[in-house]
Amino acid sequence: MPNPLEGVDTSNDPYVIVSSDTHAGLQVGEYREYLDSQFHPQFDEWVLERHNHRRLVEEMNGEYVAKWEGENEEGLRGAYDPVIRDKALDADGIAGEVIFADGDSVSGQESPPFGAGLAAGQITDPALAFAGARAHNRWLEEFCATNPNRRAGVALVPIIHDIEESVKEIQALAGKPGIKGIMVPTMWHDKPSYGHPCYDPIWAACADAGLVVHTHSGEGDWDSYNENIAQFVLEVPFWTHRILWQLLLSGKFDKFPGLRYAVVECGSYWLGDLLWKADTTFGANGKVKKLNSRTKGLMKRLPSEYLGDNVFIGASTMSREEIRRRHVNGIDALMWGTDYPHPEGSWPHTVERLETDFQKVSIEDTRLLLGLNAVKCYDLDLAALTKIAQEVGPTPEKLNQDPTLRTAPGAIREARWWFDDYGMQWPS
Amino acid sequence: MPNPLEGVDTSNDPYVIVSSDTHAGLQVGEYREYLDSQFHPQFDEWVLERHNHRRLVEEMNGEYVAKWEGENEEGLRGAYDPVIRDKALDADGIAGEVIFADGDSVSGQESPPFGAGLAAGQITDPALAFAGARAHNRWLEEFCATNPNRRAGVALVPIIHDIEESVKEIQALAGKPGIKGIMVPTMWHDKPSYGHPCYDPIWAACADAGLVVHTHSGEGDWDSYNENIAQFVLEVPFWTHRILWQLLLSGKFDKFPGLRYAVVECGSYWLGDLLWKADTTFGANGKVKKLNSRTKGLMKRLPSEYLGDNVFIGASTMSREEIRRRHVNGIDALMWGTDYPHPEGSWPHTVERLETDFQKVSIEDTRLLLGLNAVKCYDLDLAALTKIAQEVGPTPEKLNQDPTLRTAPGAIREARWWFDDYGMQWPS
Repeated sequence: MPNPLEGVDTSNDPYVIVSSDTHAGLQVGEYREYLDSQFHPQFDEWVLERHNHRRLVEEMNGEYVAKWEGENEEGLRGAYDPVIRDKALDADGIAGEVIFADGDSVSGQESPPFGAGLAAGQITDPALAFAGARAHNRWLEEFCATNPNRRAGVALVPIIHDIEESVKEIQALAGKPGIKGIMVPTMWHDKPSYGHPCYDPIWAACADAGLVVHTHSGEGDWDSYNENIAQFVLEVPFWTHRILWQLLLSGKFDKFPGLRYAVVECGSYWLGDLLWKADTTFGANGKVKKLNSRTKGLMKRLPSEYLGDNVFIGASTMSREEIRRRHVNGIDALMWGTDYPHPEGSWPHTVERLETDFQKVSIEDTRLLLGLNAVKCYDLDLAALTKIAQEVGPTPEKLNQDPTLRTAPGAIREARWWFDDYGMQWPS
Repeated sequence: MPNPLEGVDTSNDPYVIVSSDTHAGLQVGEYREYLDSQFHPQFDEWVLERHNHRRLVEEMNGEYVAKWEGENEEGLRGAYDPVIRDKALDADGIAGEVIFADGDSVSGQESPPFGAGLAAGQITDPALAFAGARAHNRWLEEFCATNPNRRAGVALVPIIHDIEESVKEIQALAGKPGIKGIMVPTMWHDKPSYGHPCYDPIWAACADAGLVVHTHSGEGDWDSYNENIAQFVLEVPFWTHRILWQLLLSGKFDKFPGLRYAVVECGSYWLGDLLWKADTTFGANGKVKKLNSRTKGLMKRLPSEYLGDNVFIGASTMSREEIRRRHVNGIDALMWGTDYPHPEGSWPHTVERLETDFQKVSIEDTRLLLGLNAVKCYDLDLAALTKIAQEVGPTPEKLNQDPTLRTAPGAIREARWWFDDYGMQWPS
């Protein structure tokens, strides 16, 4: 396994921070001009529904909404205003960003038409799903073109609704400046699951176009929560990272070696244990006594070997524990994200957060987590980002880091303890 | 939080091992006499289907089946023969056992009628679900009565199919010698989820009857696996432990303080992280910024406080890593199990397994994991079990343990690192 830390700059130069999880979107009504006009009647109804939704949110949580929006009034407009956005990124120490839909997660006033963003799986009419996605994609192309070195836009493709249409949309997105990936519905609902061969043309098209496939947290099995949001919060990571295993265990990264996938705003705490289980159960040298040959031969490598190569983790604002677990979870695959402009993330206090949470992390590890892994995943222009970072990025010294601290050469292998525990060979 | 290690015997006396996960069942055809005769026509068809199933398994995995059944011919008959069973338990060092349905997991020849055991959720006709469950329960009562101190039987109650019928069945099971719990379908399918108030009469009846509620691994979302069993294996723990959070987060253990629940053959590796998430997000002193009041007030204690009191983990044959994580996962809640007579477990080599895997574990921790937690969970007769253990149980010395090794007084608190990380108060 190549050492991802080799050659990483350990100087005090500013960090090139790429937020692997930001959001942008127009105010709902403004999407009208980007939407095919035949859908305007449904759109106008939908906008009314969104405004009603806002009233409900204010009734339930008015104090919180007023405080959040009052304190962050200007920065929140960066959801759709590129000049304000760049100012907000600068102030937060961020050089580059990976942009998802739904700029406003508090009251849903910046959702793509018909909920075609984080809630795309819940749309039942394929025509509306594609119309809403295309409206957002048209706007996103314009938005990313305002600063394409800095912005990596993630377009919307509701693949569960129509595979042929999806392939066409992906091919149309290929090569657009600043468009670096697609987001697919997190859940497949009553459609085939993502390991099913019917989706292969989509993965092939993404690999060809160099577009990273994403799922982003947001959906869940609401029918099972009895309006108890705690049930949702505790199991939403499962529903979000489930597709990772669908793709990995069905051998899609062998069938389409250029395919990359990132799971976003889903944390990373669950990852190490599932790599342990997958490596020891389904790896080339693993077996389960009762299982038959159906699992064999689909993957050429151990599951953990796809991390940092085909599989990346948009881990958003990592908890301190997740930072501590960086080597077992994948120092070459984890990507910090601020979740700007959502309140769950680190914005507008990202640098303060990094100052406390990265004190005991080596500079080389920090460079990977905060930016270099995202540069690799999205094939970003590092030179252009470095130029921005020289103006806005915090230095290792600013993060209170020890300049002499180095990651031990065997740290990655030691962290993946199951290779020793199960007598497995470390991949060459 | 009371110290569960206080007063635990650290002498070299033999371990009282209770296997919290064993299986028993008649050969399929033999269930006929326990089944209400009106179901005999469907039963005869079902038995034929089972025999066809065996032929398929032999075609796919014949070599493995022949080897397993050849090497363990006598012990496998312990699935339904109490004399042979006691011999097998003795040889494996086991004093007591918690018995689930489906004695034969290799070719399914000891399943309760209509699949009313581990596959109960897949039955669509409520009448068949209850008929099959009752047939098994009638037999199980007889079987446990052959040695009620040693056997804790878990009866079948297909609660998703009829709540009133379920309550009647639970009340009928109350106080039967050797019947200590019920198993409910692992998945609720198209029925309300287990946090829904409609099931409250069932939890009330179980609390009244002192019967422990169980889910046991076996079901999964097969429609999503595309016949790739790897998908099933990796996510089956989620589907099995999901009910734990349904009950816990909806406050059922506060509403029914006598209610106990155990999740079985689902491992324990996933537990510590979910306790961290639940404690910090939904605990008395936790909050999530955007969440409204819907999560508040349902739980009186921190989620982790219910472990070892209302919630137990039938962790079966723990991996070495799971043994290392015993303090974060719950030294007062984890219960070893052999899975006898299934091949995934430690039978017939349990003592050899313990000899290597428990070398660095203190005697007091070992006593809890191997037996005392199960004695508490199922209210077993410790004196009677100790008498059996004196004949068959391995000693600490036999397990190559260091008699001077003690668990540090602060080990449990230290293992639950999130109390310090998040500045939370340790429960008094």
